[in-house]
Amino acid sequence: MEAPSIHEANKHKKLGGRTMEIVRIGVTQPYDVLIGRGLLKEADKHLYPFVADKKVLIMTDDTIMKHGYLNQISEKLKTTAGAIHTISFQPGEEQKSMENVTRLVGHLADLNFSRQDVIIALGGGVIGDLAGFVASIYLRGIDFIQIPTTLLAAIDSSVGGKTAVDLPQGKNLVGAFYHPRLVLCDVDSFQTLEPHIFEDGCSELIKYGMIMNPRLLSELMDRTTPLQATDEELVEIVKECVEMKRKVVLEDEYDHGLRQLLNYGHTLGHAFEQCSQYQISHGRAVALGMSVFLQMADKINQLDDHYREQFDALLHQYHLLAEKYDYTAEELSKAMINDKKRRNSTITIVLPIAFGKCDLFQYPIDEFLSWFNEEWQKYEVYS
Amino acid sequence: MEAPSIHEANKHKKLGGRTMEIVRIGVTQPYDVLIGRGLLKEADKHLYPFVADKKVLIMTDDTIMKHGYLNQISEKLKTTAGAIHTISFQPGEEQKSMENVTRLVGHLADLNFSRQDVIIALGGGVIGDLAGFVASIYLRGIDFIQIPTTLLAAIDSSVGGKTAVDLPQGKNLVGAFYHPRLVLCDVDSFQTLEPHIFEDGCSELIKYGMIMNPRLLSELMDRTTPLQATDEELVEIVKECVEMKRKVVLEDEYDHGLRQLLNYGHTLGHAFEQCSQYQISHGRAVALGMSVFLQMADKINQLDDHYREQFDALLHQYHLLAEKYDYTAEELSKAMINDKKRRNSTITIVLPIAFGKCDLFQYPIDEFLSWFNEEWQKYEVYS
Repeated sequence: MEAPSIHEANKHKKLGGRTMEIVRIGVTQPYDVLIGRGLLKEADKHLYPFVADKKVLIMTDDTIMKHGYLNQISEKLKTTAGAIHTISFQPGEEQKSMENVTRLVGHLADLNFSRQDVIIALGGGVIGDLAGFVASIYLRGIDFIQIPTTLLAAIDSSVGGKTAVDLPQGKNLVGAFYHPRLVLCDVDSFQTLEPHIFEDGCSELIKYGMIMNPRLLSELMDRTTPLQATDEELVEIVKECVEMKRKVVLEDEYDHGLRQLLNYGHTLGHAFEQCSQYQISHGRAVALGMSVFLQMADKINQLDDHYREQFDALLHQYHLLAEKYDYTAEELSKAMINDKKRRNSTITIVLPIAFGKCDLFQYPIDEFLSWFNEEWQKYEVYS
Repeated sequence: MEAPSIHEANKHKKLGGRTMEIVRIGVTQPYDVLIGRGLLKEADKHLYPFVADKKVLIMTDDTIMKHGYLNQISEKLKTTAGAIHTISFQPGEEQKSMENVTRLVGHLADLNFSRQDVIIALGGGVIGDLAGFVASIYLRGIDFIQIPTTLLAAIDSSVGGKTAVDLPQGKNLVGAFYHPRLVLCDVDSFQTLEPHIFEDGCSELIKYGMIMNPRLLSELMDRTTPLQATDEELVEIVKECVEMKRKVVLEDEYDHGLRQLLNYGHTLGHAFEQCSQYQISHGRAVALGMSVFLQMADKINQLDDHYREQFDALLHQYHLLAEKYDYTAEELSKAMINDKKRRNSTITIVLPIAFGKCDLFQYPIDEFLSWFNEEWQKYEVYS
């Protein structure tokens, strides 16, 4: 299969009055991201080429199962797939463990899965990361399909091929670059998300706006009511984010440079997550990271001060900033420099350089930390 | 870096009177295999670009350590590397476990290894497979260097990028395609191998001869005494095998077709290993597999019958065939069809089609098994 040109890559299909968007990701083994409404009801049709006569293991979590999506998919595929097996985990980041990896590869071996068989990840980022990593190492790689059921997973972890599990020492320390064969993103499934989970996805939307899409950022700021899962324009917005991520990923598949732009808010965000022992959600941790780093950028890049106020107001609209954070600059600094992205004695961080535009900056770690320390003191409007 | 043409790829350097052969493996991230004598004594020079100022974890086994190679390398690198850590395992296939993988990634995290740091695999295939797989998944991939200390590892597992660990359900069921940054092959280190380990490597040499190199096969057959680790021509022979493997691997990096040629003797060999619970060595299991499959090929490919006698005589010269095997056709059949390489209801096997030339054949599993059953009865000259 050849990767299509950029002009061919944006397609959409009419499906019984509905529109399905297709974004092709032209990595070495290209795959499609299908985005639309009601797609789970047609799962058999979309998944046919990848599951026909094959053994299928659907991995999900108990919340997704409770909403009936697992039954729905199993029912749809039962006449197509050779055999369907399912496994469900309790929700939560702690499922991304080496223990679960070991258990899952053993389970696949017990089920006699061959290189022709397939794993389906039905869920959010945790399920996607765990299933993708297991698929990448079992028999040195078998097919997997992502069916993201959260906004965050749809626009973040389902594009880019990063899979990973955590160690007690830190998040995502073990993993692989491994792409799915298909991503089936049914925006309708976001309607069953708890509001704070949907808002976490909005944090990622806002990030895309800030790093490379001033129009999206303006649109979000101009809304009179916050975006909701039922809003018509959500399919288009998800498609736009998937395309932005595709652009960045294709230029830097193995994360050596440009892709670090996507880490805006993450250097500090990861530190927050770690200090809170992952009680703060990823979306909220990144939101605070973006806010603090925007303040830092204000200083060196001479951004208009009102951007920061507008930006914080936007984050507040989605309840992404708390009133109070109990971490000292020292704790956060320690967590930041333990982050795997540090490079010898310098640190690469992402800072806004204009409204809807970010760039990478490299600083000596000491300079960065003293600077952060100063900013964090000021930031104690929240403490 | 560009992959060189085949003409540029074969280089050798004079080193104080000795010759070092260099084979460049032109995969996506190309690397060199250095082959010669006395190379461990110059480890600092050869490894400099990959270890300077970096944290290094040298993984080895207790036998290698006993021979002093670990001390020798550590001593050589101590002024170059930023820090040197070492870890040694008991020898044996059982070290290739998910438990050791989990332990090792945790160890790397404890040592605060970053994406810039490096793992050195000093040992045979077990250490190479385990270290390579750990390097491939820690932080989604850090550098590793292979220093094969067995003939088998030098000509087999150090080229091709296959890394793996075992599950209780079978061998090499979990792994990754991941290439080293450098392979440093000091043929002198083979002199400390126990004779049966060196002979296991010779089984692999014979395999290369039979699948694609009639000249090498003739040379081995024409020898009046078996090849030994001290023989002058060993450097050239290792280089020739590495080049053959490179040729096959470059045409089929991800093991979809041609590379299966390298599995000559392995379909049955793996079954032997499994039935014996890995008490039969890989080299001896593959030797018997080659012998039986040559007999099967004789029948359909009308090979001259004396090839088989000559070939078995060669295997006997290296003590690779036993006088007696205690496994029934039924036990072996069961193990063969559980092998991960089966594809639906057919099986792909490698059979000689001429002296020093093999090809891939696909048969319905039932047909293959009834045929094997018949041959195995005849093969009871050994039982």
